[in-house]
Formats: sequence, C-alpha cells, structure tokens
Amino acid sequence: MNFTAAVIAQFLKGKVEGNPEASISDVSKIEEGRPGTLSFLANPKYEKYIYDTKSTIVIVNDDFKPQQGVGATLIRVRNAYESFAELLRFYEQNKPKKSGISKLASIAESAVLGKDLYVGEYTVVHEHARLGDGVHLYPQVYIGDHVKIGEGTVIHAGVKIYEGSEIGAQCVIHAGAVIGGDGFGFAPNQENRYQKVPQMGKVIIEDHVEVGANTTIDRATIGSTILRKGVKLDNLIMIAHNVEVGENTVMAAQTGISGSTKVGKNCMFGGQVGLIGHITIADGVKIAAQSGIPKSIKQEDTVVQGSPPLDFMHFQRCYVVFKNLPKLRDQVTELERKVSDLGK
Amino acid sequence: MNFTAAVIAQFLKGKVEGNPEASISDVSKIEEGRPGTLSFLANPKYEKYIYDTKSTIVIVNDDFKPQQGVGATLIRVRNAYESFAELLRFYEQNKPKKSGISKLASIAESAVLGKDLYVGEYTVVHEHARLGDGVHLYPQVYIGDHVKIGEGTVIHAGVKIYEGSEIGAQCVIHAGAVIGGDGFGFAPNQENRYQKVPQMGKVIIEDHVEVGANTTIDRATIGSTILRKGVKLDNLIMIAHNVEVGENTVMAAQTGISGSTKVGKNCMFGGQVGLIGHITIADGVKIAAQSGIPKSIKQEDTVVQGSPPLDFMHFQRCYVVFKNLPKLRDQVTELERKVSDLGK
Amino acid sequence: MNFTAAVIAQFLKGKVEGNPEASISDVSKIEEGRPGTLSFLANPKYEKYIYDTKSTIVIVNDDFKPQQGVGATLIRVRNAYESFAELLRFYEQNKPKKSGISKLASIAESAVLGKDLYVGEYTVVHEHARLGDGVHLYPQVYIGDHVKIGEGTVIHAGVKIYEGSEIGAQCVIHAGAVIGGDGFGFAPNQENRYQKVPQMGKVIIEDHVEVGANTTIDRATIGSTILRKGVKLDNLIMIAHNVEVGENTVMAAQTGISGSTKVGKNCMFGGQVGLIGHITIADGVKIAAQSGIPKSIKQEDTVVQGSPPLDFMHFQRCYVVFKNLPKLRDQVTELERKVSDLGK
Repeated sequence: MNFTAAVIAQFLKGKVEGNPEASISDVSKIEEGRPGTLSFLANPKYEKYIYDTKSTIVIVNDDFKPQQGVGATLIRVRNAYESFAELLRFYEQNKPKKSGISKLASIAESAVLGKDLYVGEYTVVHEHARLGDGVHLYPQVYIGDHVKIGEGTVIHAGVKIYEGSEIGAQCVIHAGAVIGGDGFGFAPNQENRYQKVPQMGKVIIEDHVEVGANTTIDRATIGSTILRKGVKLDNLIMIAHNVEVGENTVMAAQTGISGSTKVGKNCMFGGQVGLIGHITIADGVKIAAQSGIPKSIKQEDTVVQGSPPLDFMHFQRCYVVFKNLPKLRDQVTELERKVSDLGK
Repeated sequence: MNFTAAVIAQFLKGKVEGNPEASISDVSKIEEGRPGTLSFLANPKYEKYIYDTKSTIVIVNDDFKPQQGVGATLIRVRNAYESFAELLRFYEQNKPKKSGISKLASIAESAVLGKDLYVGEYTVVHEHARLGDGVHLYPQVYIGDHVKIGEGTVIHAGVKIYEGSEIGAQCVIHAGAVIGGDGFGFAPNQENRYQKVPQMGKVIIEDHVEVGANTTIDRATIGSTILRKGVKLDNLIMIAHNVEVGENTVMAAQTGISGSTKVGKNCMFGGQVGLIGHITIADGVKIAAQSGIPKSIKQEDTVVQGSPPLDFMHFQRCYVVFKNLPKLRDQVTELERKVSDLGK
Repeated sequence: MNFTAAVIAQFLKGKVEGNPEASISDVSKIEEGRPGTLSFLANPKYEKYIYDTKSTIVIVNDDFKPQQGVGATLIRVRNAYESFAELLRFYEQNKPKKSGISKLASIAESAVLGKDLYVGEYTVVHEHARLGDGVHLYPQVYIGDHVKIGEGTVIHAGVKIYEGSEIGAQCVIHAGAVIGGDGFGFAPNQENRYQKVPQMGKVIIEDHVEVGANTTIDRATIGSTILRKGVKLDNLIMIAHNVEVGENTVMAAQTGISGSTKVGKNCMFGGQVGLIGHITIADGVKIAAQSGIPKSIKQEDTVVQGSPPLDFMHFQRCYVVFKNLPKLRDQVTELERKVSDLGK
C-alpha cells in the first residue's frame, strides 16, 4: 500500500510542508530512514537525524523549528509520537487478516463457534469449548474442554489452554504461553515424599489482557487465578495458583508471582521481579527490576527496589555506602587505633 | 456428580452435624462459598468466614467449637485439611479421563505401545519410542526416537521430548516443557568464534516426578542429566546439562541450575534461585528465593539466603545494618571529627 | 557403529598404547566408564579415575605419565579434550539425519523450498516463506508468512516463528523458542488504560546463531531486533524489541535484555542477568550471573557483578564487609561510647 503526504496529513489533521505527492509504503526509525518510508521526530535528542535522514516523510511536532535544511517532506501535527502511533494502529487494523477454519484443524462437535473465526492448521478445540465472534486461533493451538474465549481475542501459534480456563474479549495471547496448568501444590507425607494436591480451580482472564510469549499462568487449587481487565504481561512471566492481578497492572519479562498473592490495580513491575506467596500489593505500586518482595506493601503508589525492598531513593543511598564499605571499614579500624592511643 | 454429607462423612470416617442429606457438586474456598459447594476450615485465621459462608457443607476439625451459629452442615474429622485433600484426590482419580488414540496422531510403526493409552490430536511419536501402559499424551506432543515413557505418566499438550530421553512411571509433565534439548556447550576457537560441542548424552527422569509448564531440561554432553524419584519442578525452570537432582527435592518457579551441578535429596529451593555449575549441594538444604549460589554447600539441612548466600538469620541481621548504612557512615564521620578534636 | 583404537588413532593422528583392535560403540565420562565406551582424560583432577575406569579406550595427552597400571587402551594426542570434541563432531555429522517432507506437514503453495529439506509432521509453513537448502524443520514447527530461513539451519520441534522473521544459515533453534512475537509496547491513555503500540518491525538472526529452548525474541516496534553472527543464547532467555546483540556474544540461561539495548561483540553474560532498556554494552564485557545493569558500560572488556553492578573484584571486597556488618555496627557503637567517655 502506498500513501501520499497529502492523504496522511488529512488523516492526522496535520499540515504538509514540502511535496504533498511524496509517497511512502513502509515506516522506519528516523536514524535508519530509507526512501519510501515514513518516520517521526518527537524526542529532541533525535533532532540531529532529521537533517540527513533518507526517510521520504517525517511527522514532526507543530512547534519544530529546523536549524538547517531538511530534505524530507514534513507533516506537522500537535503530537508527533501519538500521531505516528495512531497511523500504525490504523495500518494494523486494515492490513489483511488470516481468516477461515482450516480443514487441518480438529474441532469437537460439541464446541460452540462464533462468526468470522480464524482457526489455523493443527489447532485442536476440545469438547464444549466456546469461541466468540472474530476469535483468531493460529496454528497448533490447544483449547481444552469447556474453555471460553471472548470476541476478537487473538491466540498465537502453539498456545496451550487447559480445560475450563476463561479468556475475555479483545485479548492477545502470544505464542507458547500456557494457561491453566496445575498449580504447584504438594503435601509432604511420611518420609518426605510429596503427594500432589489436586488443582481443581481455573484461570479467569478478563477483557483487553495481553499475555507474552512462553508466559505461564497456573490454575487455582480451588477458585480462580485472575487477571483483571487491561493487565499486560510480558514474556516468560510466572503467575502461580490463586494469584489475582488488578486492572491495568503491567509486568515486564521474567517476573514471578507466587501463590495466592493479590496485586493491586495500575501497578508497574520491572523485569525479573519476584513476589512471595500470600501477600497483598496496594494499587499503583512500582517495583524496580530484580526486586524481591517478601511482605505485603500496603501503601498505595509506593516505589521500591531491592531484595528485600527499600524505598527506591533510600535503596540508592544505601547502595552508595555499600560501594564504599571497604573504605568505611578501614575508617573504623583507624578510629579504633586512634581512640586506643588517646585512651592511654 | 452430587454427594450428600452422609456419603462424604462415611468416606472420611467423620461425623455429620446438621443435615445429612445436604448435597454438593463442587468445592469452594470458605470465604468464597456458594450454595452446593463443599469447603473446609483448618487455619483458625479463617474461622470468621464459617459464620456466614454460603457453602452447603464445611469440613472442620474434631475440636472446632463455633462461637456463634453456623448455617452450613458440618462434617467433623481428625484433620480437616488432610480430609479435604483426600476428597479432592478421590474426585480427581474418579473423574472421566481422556482415552483412545486419535486418528490424527502420527505414531511410527516401530514404536512400542502399552495398553490403555490416550494419544491426542497431532501428537507425534517417532521411531522405536516406548510408551508404558496408561500413558497419556495430550495433543501436539512430540516424542523423539527411542524415547521411553513409564506407566501412567501424563504428558500435557505441546511437550517436546528429544530423542533418547527416558521418563519414569507416574510422572506429570506440563504443557510446553522441553526435555532433552542440547546442553549449552561451545568451545571457543580462533578469533572468538564458538564451535558447538555435540551433546551426546541424554535425560533420565525417574518415577513420580512432576515438571512444570515451559520448564527446560537439557541433555548431558556425555552421560545423563538426572532427576531422581519424586522431584517436583515448578514452571519455567532451567536444568542444564549433566545436572543431577536428588530424590524428593522441590524447586519453585524460574530457578536455574547450571551444568554438572549435583543437588542432594529433600532440598527446597525458592523461586528465581540460581546455582553455578560444577558444585554440590548437600541433602536437605533450603535456599531462599532469588539467592545465587556460587560454591558447594556441604553441610546438610543448611538454610541460606543471598547472592552470594549467607546463613538465613545472618543475612537478615546484615540486611538490617545495610538499611541503615547512610546513618552508620554519618556516625563514623562524626566520630572522626570528635576524635580529631580530642587529639588536638 | 563400532570403531577400533587403530581407526580412531589414525583419524586423530594419535598413537595407540595397548590393543589396537580394542573397539568401542559409545562414549562415556571416565568416572562412569563402561566396557565398549571411549573416554578422555584432560583435567589432572580426574587422573585418579583412569586407573580403574571400565572404559575400553581413553584418549590422553601426549605427556600423560601413568602413576600405576592402566587397564584401558590409550590413544595419545596433542590435546585430549580437543581431539575428543573433534570425534564427537565427526560422529554427529555422520549419524543418520531425518529427511524428507512429511505428508502430514502443511506447506503453502507460495512457499519457496530449497533442496534436501526435512519437514516433520504437523509443521506449518505459511505464505511466501523461503526455506534454504538442507533446512530441517522438526514436527509441529510454525513458520509464518514471508519468513526466510537460511541453508542448513535446524529448527527443533514446536518452535514458533512469526511472520517476516529472517533466520540465517547454519543456525540451531531449540524446541519451544518463540521468534518474532510482539514487543511489549503500550502507551498509557486516559484513566491509566494502556493502548497497544503496533509492533511493525521484525527479527533478524544472522548465520551460526544458536537459540535455546523456550527462549523468546520479540520483533522490533519499527526496524529490527538483531542477533549478529555467531551469537549463542541458552534456554529461557528474553530478548526484547529493538535489541541488538553483537557477534559471538554468549548468554547463559534466564537472562533478559530490555528494549532497544545494544550489546557488543564477544560479551559473556552469566545466567539470570538483567539489562535495562536503551543502554549500550561495550565489546568483550563480562557480566556475572544475577547481575542487574541499569546503565551503559562503555569500557571494553569490563568484568562486573552486582545489581547495580560493581567491578567484579570490588564487589567481592564490598561483600566481605557486608557479611560483617553487624560486627562493624557494634564496633562503631563501642567507639561512640569510648569517645564519649574520653570527651568527659
């Protein structure tokens, strides 16, 4: 697809500066611009690239004042980054989608199917599963018995969803994610052998949730493991049994939440964070990457770092002293010598 | 399935208090009780919920003395938690299981098949593989050449088992786990290029082992990577080449064990623990979450925390001082000033 | 296959000491030797095993001087470890390989196929994908639209490669890896709801790269996420959108690299390392396991440990003091008492 500067400017309610017939068929970063691509400039740090970018069109903020000549055609808008993201979303929504049910998929007769589905090759849908309108199942997906999937949800290749799990509408589940596997529950019996505690509960994922590649979300022992509306999980995350994650909380890759912990709304966790089980995290808490959380955090909007965690700024101050510990120890030794001399 | 209080009490050798004809068809947590469900009360912290739970039947300890009226029918037993778990296991064992070999599976003619198998759609069993009686292979599983799987083992959807791996009896391998991938072995040659060291060994998993979703267990370079009887691994764990894990050791999610390390029996590792390669961990060692272990731990039943680790209680004491390091540094600075004054 | 000591010695340009007709059909570690196997002795720590190993043949260094009788036939070479690895590679290259295109695979008509392919059961190749000569796709692999895979690359069971990804020649991608999933990009809008930023870029993997089991490599937002020639990634690693990893860099398991970070050539990262986004790591940097890197490392060949990291030796020195912090605090308290007494 080709778009001219004039058409793009009209869509974005922006103003063309340069050739309105300049046309693009792809996007690029401004520092990697190629002829025929569209870029944007929002962060002033990148301004230097605009003067020799090879991009054909660049979206800039209304108030951008070039310090020298610019070869590209400009489109001026109120907010260059937002306009660019809007364009990407428009493009994404309008690009051709996979559709139809492959003859190489296996769908149980008792499954209930909505309209306008895509079901790829070698995907399996077991008994009494329900797929809402517009659901996309890429190849090699496994949908267990009685699983429900809401309208417009996209399940990428090779996702495995165990029986009874419920996924909301407009979700995206990335390749290799596993939803509804058994919680890790064993009761020690005689001689230190562990006996499995059956995991009878399920997983509930509400609307507009995104789950990253190879992330695992375990079913509850009893009741449900729950991801509330708008939760976004990156890749390789572990959500244990009976965990509940509040609305619009986002977690970066490789974070792990232990069993029965409740995480509030609008939280942000960095990568490789670990939370112990059976604790509660208040709304709006931010946890720095690699932190380990052994206790509940009750104060909303707290920002913490460390394992165990401290207030973010306090951790930084402690770490400054940590880096000078050998010197501090030498100071103390020297003081002991002096004080001993003085005492003589 | 419906069960009356009388039937459940008989099964558990307990005593009904209330309506022996009260009947349930599901289980729930006592704090989330619904009519028609069975709950239990073991931990006194949860006693408050029993007075207004909507559960129809609650299993309680023999010595439970209600402080006010209880609407639910009670079943009194010696140990409420154990009785509840026993019921769950009974239910689990008796619920209908998948069975039969799907026509959409691909099984090599040279494979040796036991009785009473379940093989799901699009599962692949390659040459000379051996499946014991009662093995369950969910859809989209891959079983490489010469793999052996013992009686009653359940392999969930999408598990990949490379050639030559041996899995014992009564194991559970969760979706997405990868068993027998190459160990990470490269020998640097001229110019910092790495040449692959062929990984000729295999993986041996003994009986009663559970492997979590998306966990990876690499084959040995030579010899075997071994998980002994009763080992329980949570999700997203990494077991490197030539590692050996002793009987009944349990590891929480996202833990990683580097190559050739030997872990003893009855150990317990928290989540996100890391062990360096070529070390030995004694029997019964407990390692707190996120700890990093760079050296062998030779003393049995040691409990450690930290990266590098310290004795658990000692780590706690050190961390208390760490949190006050800025103050300690100020104390030292103040002392230096005073001592300098005194010395004048 | 059976090989005699004479044949092996000729291949390795070594010298037989013992029975040139001694023959082996497998390899073993010297400490686990069995009749009919070949072992090697390189590390003097293992010398004790050679005197009673049951291996039939042992490869040793030219200058090895037994301290007592050795039962096995020896083959003397310049470098026992390298010769052994050479043999393993020879064996690996000559063992029978899977071949042919399974009738149970689904390959789009528009896909472009090289010669001598192996395509396993239930593998899917979508529109316009290109597979070079000698490519191996094990069962249940997913190859999206327009994916390119170079000559001789081996893709193990269940790997998922999203549309548009480009994989070079002679790569190995292990089971369960996910390549080209969406980057984790969301823009907050009103009320803390997140809107997805479409991920329009792709993944480029150059030649001779190895990717471990269940590792995930996200596509770029715009442009490309790039693994340069010779990169080796272990299992369960996370490579975020727009990351670039330089030639011959190796990373151990469970490491995570956040978005837009550039890692240099010939770096070595231990397991469970985390790097924040938008930073640059110089060539040849070594990062100890579990370290967390919040800032660029500009000095080549730096060796660091910690979270945040310090120079490796400096971290060790600081940690020694950390372990004695309670004592240091007591020393300071005692000094305060003494100085106060002196001041009276």
